[in-house]
Amino acid sequence: MDAVREVAMSVAELEAFLAREFPQAFGPGKPHHVMRVGHRVACVRLDADDSHLRPGGTISGPAMMALADVAVYVALLGQIGPVALAVTTNLSINFLRKPAPGPLFADARIIKLGKRLAVGDVGLRGAGSEDLVAHCVATYSIPDRPAS
Amino acid sequence: MDAVREVAMSVAELEAFLAREFPQAFGPGKPHHVMRVGHRVACVRLDADDSHLRPGGTISGPAMMALADVAVYVALLGQIGPVALAVTTNLSINFLRKPAPGPLFADARIIKLGKRLAVGDVGLRGAGSEDLVAHCVATYSIPDRPAS
Amino acid sequence: MDAVREVAMSVAELEAFLAREFPQAFGPGKPHHVMRVGHRVACVRLDADDSHLRPGGTISGPAMMALADVAVYVALLGQIGPVALAVTTNLSINFLRKPAPGPLFADARIIKLGKRLAVGDVGLRGAGSEDLVAHCVATYSIPDRPAS
Amino acid sequence: MDAVREVAMSVAELEAFLAREFPQAFGPGKPHHVMRVGHRVACVRLDADDSHLRPGGTISGPAMMALADVAVYVALLGQIGPVALAVTTNLSINFLRKPAPGPLFADARIIKLGKRLAVGDVGLRGAGSEDLVAHCVATYSIPDRPAS
Repeated sequence: MDAVREVAMSVAELEAFLAREFPQAFGPGKPHHVMRVGHRVACVRLDADDSHLRPGGTISGPAMMALADVAVYVALLGQIGPVALAVTTNLSINFLRKPAPGPLFADARIIKLGKRLAVGDVGLRGAGSEDLVAHCVATYSIPDRPAS
Repeated sequence: MDAVREVAMSVAELEAFLAREFPQAFGPGKPHHVMRVGHRVACVRLDADDSHLRPGGTISGPAMMALADVAVYVALLGQIGPVALAVTTNLSINFLRKPAPGPLFADARIIKLGKRLAVGDVGLRGAGSEDLVAHCVATYSIPDRPAS
Repeated sequence: MDAVREVAMSVAELEAFLAREFPQAFGPGKPHHVMRVGHRVACVRLDADDSHLRPGGTISGPAMMALADVAVYVALLGQIGPVALAVTTNLSINFLRKPAPGPLFADARIIKLGKRLAVGDVGLRGAGSEDLVAHCVATYSIPDRPAS
Repeated sequence: MDAVREVAMSVAELEAFLAREFPQAFGPGKPHHVMRVGHRVACVRLDADDSHLRPGGTISGPAMMALADVAVYVALLGQIGPVALAVTTNLSINFLRKPAPGPLFADARIIKLGKRLAVGDVGLRGAGSEDLVAHCVATYSIPDRPAS
């Protein structure tokens, strides 16, 4: 029962909300997919298409930054629900390894959920690997609400 | 004569190189344009199209991250020329204000050009405004070469 | 007359306030000194003593981080005055060159002064040099106040 | 037997090395202590003294930055041994909560160990708490060596 209590939005609710908010990224035929949401965590998958690839087939840096950013956003929405208007104020990313071809997974975790700021970190990895391709920390500004 | 000595690639050479390297971003009909290159500085313009906009018409965070990243890359290429294979290792960005509609300009400056690492900072602003929309610092790893 | 209007605290007022707030860093015989404050800018000098030095005489990273942090704080106090309780929420620093012996100067600039967040960047340099030893961006959380 | 194979320096060897390298921070009567070192991880404790405290008894930001930085350094030394001359090139920290009085623990993890760069992240927490007081990511530049 904990999962019911602890998550403000289900995967299906998040997918529907994101398809409206980010119509280029989420929705039928689009490359981003919410895999999982839990207490202060979320996983988002990117099935890279040509717009995300550099010549040679490597996923571009901006595609990884966008994936990392949205994964923290999804973990945050899972806590505070769809009503909140949250915007990224700071994002810092380290590119660690060249990603292998194939889908990319972003595992995000909220490490602070305050009244005005939320902070999350996120690791990007390929399928079937524990090695991080990139690591990112993002801060979101959120409308005033009780701290939790 | 200083400009000849101090810049390894002209605006036209940079545009041609980038159209090959980043065919989705630079080239005829594409949204990014090299405005200026000088000693350790460069300016790149983004004419946002639908793929860069959020619902409501605001330029998306990832579009700003991509613009900031490439502006530092252009300033770096202006110093070390097109042969170098440089990759971003770290990027940190602060989103400061909601950008107004219209083109976005990225003014980049190289603050360190070492043997193995280059660091640049970059301010993003709208046309006709000095207020920064975003501020970014990026580190590039570059193949071994003499420090300068 | 602009300087009078635009700065909320003079150098002497800042020095007195900081000697109370940071008694280990500012005040008679202490290593930090406010050199200058202006519209959204400030300069702070560090006369490094043994506690700031690594074996060999180089100024330590933490001493540079502390100097950068306080210089942004001073520039912010120059705008909002001594009543505000501002705390650092994020600090990102790049170490660029080994500093030469002697005093270190931190030139800070506020690039955003919002209702809840202020962001500043700061360059650290030695005496008589334009080359940056380190570059830092810091975010402060400030109590609710009108944006400016 | 894994621990023997996987760690290049023991806790005692690290303590002895750090007492020579950072005589103000490590050694008999000094505030930093290596608690643990393992495969790509380390834990360092800070027993804050007056030089680390702000008026009111809170541990200062610079003291937390120094602790985070050295914890990543210790985890790195645990992998590459004492011969390597590694220097911090980038450090990004988020301050999340006010630390309670008492010792502070830094749990560091190396997320990339390349030929030229190593990246680690580190969480700071008080005794008996899982809540992070601060979270930091640091990059070290290391002399050329085989990737691992």
